[in-house]
Amino acid sequence: MRVLELAKRRKTVRQFLPHKPPMDAIMRAIEAAKEAPSGMNAQPWHFVVIDDEWLKGRIRELCEDAERKFYEKVEGDLGEWLQEKGFSPEKPFLSDAPYLILVFGHTKAPYWLQSVWIAVGYLLLALEEEGLGTVTYTPPNPRLIEELLNAPKDYKLQTILPVGYPTDPKPKYERKRLEEVMSLNGF
Amino acid sequence: MRVLELAKRRKTVRQFLPHKPPMDAIMRAIEAAKEAPSGMNAQPWHFVVIDDEWLKGRIRELCEDAERKFYEKVEGDLGEWLQEKGFSPEKPFLSDAPYLILVFGHTKAPYWLQSVWIAVGYLLLALEEEGLGTVTYTPPNPRLIEELLNAPKDYKLQTILPVGYPTDPKPKYERKRLEEVMSLNGF
Repeated sequence: MRVLELAKRRKTVRQFLPHKPPMDAIMRAIEAAKEAPSGMNAQPWHFVVIDDEWLKGRIRELCEDAERKFYEKVEGDLGEWLQEKGFSPEKPFLSDAPYLILVFGHTKAPYWLQSVWIAVGYLLLALEEEGLGTVTYTPPNPRLIEELLNAPKDYKLQTILPVGYPTDPKPKYERKRLEEVMSLNGF
Repeated sequence: MRVLELAKRRKTVRQFLPHKPPMDAIMRAIEAAKEAPSGMNAQPWHFVVIDDEWLKGRIRELCEDAERKFYEKVEGDLGEWLQEKGFSPEKPFLSDAPYLILVFGHTKAPYWLQSVWIAVGYLLLALEEEGLGTVTYTPPNPRLIEELLNAPKDYKLQTILPVGYPTDPKPKYERKRLEEVMSLNGF
C-alpha cells in the first residue's frame, strides 16, 4: 500500500544536500496539493516557491528575529520540549534548502484553515514520493514575510516548507500505536 | 506518480453502496493518518470508527437538527452556493455509509488544528487508495456528538467522514490550474 508506506517513511527533515532538485518535482507536488478538497471548493491556497538566494536569506533573518523574541517569552511544556530536543532560534534550513515553499491561506473562504492544512498533508506525501525532504515550519511572525512578498491582504502565511534532498540523520519521532489513537463505536 | 494520481482521482462522495468494506481497509487508512507530523509530536488526534446502526442514526439526527438551525440563519455567498449546489439539511450519508470516521483534535497541544488536518489529508489519500469514498463533513454543532460519545473534555470533534464504496455520480469539482495557485519568488 503506497500511501501507508510513504506516510510511515516520511520524517521531518531539517538538513538538505546543496544539490538542487528539478523544479518539475516541486511543481508535481504542488499539483497534487491543489487537488485537495476545500470548503465551497474555494481552493483557498497559494503556493509561493522561492529559490532566490537573497529572498531565502531575508526570510531566514525575519524568522530568526521573531524566533529570538519568541524564545525569550516561551515557557511551560513547549519551552522544556524545545530545550530538551536541542531547538534554538537559528533556522539554517531556511537558507540552506534549495527551495522554500510558502503556503498561504485565503482567510475569507469558509473552512479555509482546515482546507489549507489538508492540502499541506497532500503536499507532504507528494514531496516524500519525489524523494524530497521537508519540515512544516510555522514562522512566529508571518506578517513581516507577507509584507516582504507583497501578499494580498486576505492571504495569510501558514507554513514555510524548506525542500531539498534530505541528509538529516535524526530518526523519525515515534508514533503511538493504532489502538492508542483509534476506537470503535465510542471513545 | 501515485500520490498525484490519487489526488487527482479523489472526489467528494456522498453516496455509498450498502456493501460493507472490510474493517482492515479502514484501519490501514487510519494507520497512515497517524503517521502525520504534529507540533511537538503530540499526535493530537483520535479516530472514532462507528459502524453501529443506532449510533449512526443518532449522529445523523443530531447533525440534521443543527443543520436546520444553521440553514435558517445562513446567508451571503455560502447561502447562495448551498442553494445553487442543491444542498439541504438532510444528511443521509451519515446513516447510509457503512462506516463513519469521527476525527477529534486534542485542543491543548500546540498547532493541534493544523496537525489534525494534515492527518485528515493523509487519511483522504489513504482511503482513496483503498477504493473507498468519503466527504469531509463538518458538523455545525459538534458538542452534542462529543457528549453522545463521552469524548474527554479537551477533545473536540473536527470532522465526520462517512466511508464506503462510492456510488456518487457527481463529478469532481474542477480545480484551478497550477499557474493560478503557484508563483515563483513572490506573489
